Amino acid sequence: MNIPKSSFPRVVIIGGGFAGVALARKLSKKEVQVVLLDKNNYHTFQPLLYQVSTGGLEPDSIAYPIRKILKNFPNFHYRLADVTEIDTNNNTVITNIGDLKFSYLVVASGSQTNYFGNSDIEKYSMAMKTIPQSLDLRSLILENFEEALLTSDLNERNALMNFVIVGGGPTGVELAGALAEIKKGILPKDYPDLDTRLARINIIQSSGSLLKGMSDKASAKAEDFLEKLGVNIWKNVRVTNYDGKTVTTNTDLTFETATLVWAAGVKGATIKGLDAENFVSRGNRLLVNQYNQIKGFDHIFAIGDVAIMESEATPYGHPMMAQPAIQQGDLLGENLLRFIENKTMTPFVYKDKGSMATIGRNKAVVDMQKFKFQGVFAWFVWMFVHLFFLIGFRNRMVVFVNWVYNYIRFDREARLIIRPFKNKLLE
Amino acid sequence: MNIPKSSFPRVVIIGGGFAGVALARKLSKKEVQVVLLDKNNYHTFQPLLYQVSTGGLEPDSIAYPIRKILKNFPNFHYRLADVTEIDTNNNTVITNIGDLKFSYLVVASGSQTNYFGNSDIEKYSMAMKTIPQSLDLRSLILENFEEALLTSDLNERNALMNFVIVGGGPTGVELAGALAEIKKGILPKDYPDLDTRLARINIIQSSGSLLKGMSDKASAKAEDFLEKLGVNIWKNVRVTNYDGKTVTTNTDLTFETATLVWAAGVKGATIKGLDAENFVSRGNRLLVNQYNQIKGFDHIFAIGDVAIMESEATPYGHPMMAQPAIQQGDLLGENLLRFIENKTMTPFVYKDKGSMATIGRNKAVVDMQKFKFQGVFAWFVWMFVHLFFLIGFRNRMVVFVNWVYNYIRFDREARLIIRPFKNKLLE
Repeated sequence: MNIPKSSFPRVVIIGGGFAGVALARKLSKKEVQVVLLDKNNYHTFQPLLYQVSTGGLEPDSIAYPIRKILKNFPNFHYRLADVTEIDTNNNTVITNIGDLKFSYLVVASGSQTNYFGNSDIEKYSMAMKTIPQSLDLRSLILENFEEALLTSDLNERNALMNFVIVGGGPTGVELAGALAEIKKGILPKDYPDLDTRLARINIIQSSGSLLKGMSDKASAKAEDFLEKLGVNIWKNVRVTNYDGKTVTTNTDLTFETATLVWAAGVKGATIKGLDAENFVSRGNRLLVNQYNQIKGFDHIFAIGDVAIMESEATPYGHPMMAQPAIQQGDLLGENLLRFIENKTMTPFVYKDKGSMATIGRNKAVVDMQKFKFQGVFAWFVWMFVHLFFLIGFRNRMVVFVNWVYNYIRFDREARLIIRPFKNKLLE
Repeated sequence: MNIPKSSFPRVVIIGGGFAGVALARKLSKKEVQVVLLDKNNYHTFQPLLYQVSTGGLEPDSIAYPIRKILKNFPNFHYRLADVTEIDTNNNTVITNIGDLKFSYLVVASGSQTNYFGNSDIEKYSMAMKTIPQSLDLRSLILENFEEALLTSDLNERNALMNFVIVGGGPTGVELAGALAEIKKGILPKDYPDLDTRLARINIIQSSGSLLKGMSDKASAKAEDFLEKLGVNIWKNVRVTNYDGKTVTTNTDLTFETATLVWAAGVKGATIKGLDAENFVSRGNRLLVNQYNQIKGFDHIFAIGDVAIMESEATPYGHPMMAQPAIQQGDLLGENLLRFIENKTMTPFVYKDKGSMATIGRNKAVVDMQKFKFQGVFAWFVWMFVHLFFLIGFRNRMVVFVNWVYNYIRFDREARLIIRPFKNKLLE
């Protein structure tokens, strides 16, 4: 790979998500050469992907060019590359655009959808982890209503207007809420020829409560909000299969649907060469020590979703969310320089800043260390926190304009179907 | 096709562009049933497509859901459909979602890129007539620079950084100007490893001046602006072929390039059944009389780009632009009702409101009946006119925010590559 020579040690970062970008920013002015590899030329603000899927925001508003995040740093290099393997014996990363030697390697490759080995579900369901996937889901939802208008077969029409979301985490809850608001505010105006009251939104959760990991209060209130919006909540139900038409479960329940959104699990996006059993723990995540060094190495690190730091305090590792990723990236930015200078590194301690989820207009739940609250105020807090963490002034402005507009007009205007063939995933 | 029964006569409109939407709006509260067919669920504001291609605007900002334009009108029906044929003997439109009888038919199918029968150019060049095409061009431009970084073959690198635009009309001129500004303002920051001064932008025009149809002053000034921006202008040169690598011309000139943008011509997008020689004139456009009735019919009309109204005053028909399309759509909205009531129709007279093109920051040319001006003021006029004609308050707001940001920051942030494979056109 064509990277300029440098007298500084080379740090290769795989992945431009929250963790990788936080680390690169910390290292950008230091005496290291940083090479960041990502198969996309943009950073994705994943917490808002569901708003892209539901027409509330444009994809460009929640993405940011990686080159622009780190421009003006002469020691920083970005390459659009798909990493296929890591050769730990030769300290080399193997990619579709050539090999690259590293002094230090940081795996920040994030997570991917976990289908738990079910290839039918993988084939027929929709995921929402990337911008192309979110656009694809948006197109499918809109196409379904266009098709529902055309068919005279009542069963088919019902299946087209039936949405099944598997997984009661923040992604599932936020998507269900947004779809319910579309049903109420947009469908009756857009489809006067269709009885859109027949549209149904279902959320299926394998455990006994939504938003696991948040407080009981938040969980109960989220459920309450969703029910008021008309979402059907199915708890203690596990989906066993989906053949493109029928969802079967471990109970008698079945669902006839043209749209299954799989938000039921993620797993670490490990890379060949660093995927052997001795590195990998629960959820296919790479075992790291408190300095984010991968077990058995001192110059190879993992941060963010792909890393699992098992300890007494966190037997299952940290939550696979933005906050631990950013904090690990930030700390490693300091620790790596200490390590290079043979100084003592600081162990990672996660500062839980709380978690939150929005269910809809004026409806959100927020858990902080000291305060837990739900409703209108929580919703405003949710919006400001998300605006604050978005990268880029223009993005914040455009998202703000969209949210104000959507709020005042009860609308979501990004309703373009921009792909030619149904179910032709963009990636 | 599943359309509700109505006691009113049915007007079928093919195409949701400027002409079709203007007509549908006029008819929406009248005693007719309107069925609008389009293969996209959105209206595209074509004059700003070049800004999508160059990262200045997000695609959703210049598109608008067709259903939303005409919501709340009970007699209006939209269907996502690809019209394959018109059966004039049986007054039936044949589409991929079934047949549809009409009382009156209005063909507003617009125009398509004209390759003048050259299949190589059609295969290897990029067009910019639709949103997917514009996104595809955006991705290709960005991918080219990523690839230029990787290659050590100097010829290949030059070809990747060489942009050839064929056609000196508004599309070609505006795209060339925008690319020149990207070269100046964005590339050096984004690609510090690359000598981006080597990037070249060429515009090839078969005749002796740019912006044919505008005043000599506008044409000369546009040329002057482009030259100041470093664009190479090749006049009186006609491109004869492009094999994906080399552009050949009718002169000794050749260009080695990875990107040929074909903006050299459009032709009417006629439909089978209404494409026989006796209907079709210059530019593959449907011959209409001064009431936009297609030659030989009284209940079948054509408006906008696809129609050609030949007269002494307009021997070559009206320009294939938004203004004649909107005006014909508006007038036909009134004439059709007169025709149904057996009243006399009003002949179409084109009110030329002038034309304009922007070349870049503070640089535009405007020709109006009484005033012709160029420079900063023209640029502001251009912006306000385009904001005014955009459909949707949210779109105007978002475009305005983007333009202000781009102006202040010399930037264009919508730089996402969102397709997986190079040259895999979305449609």
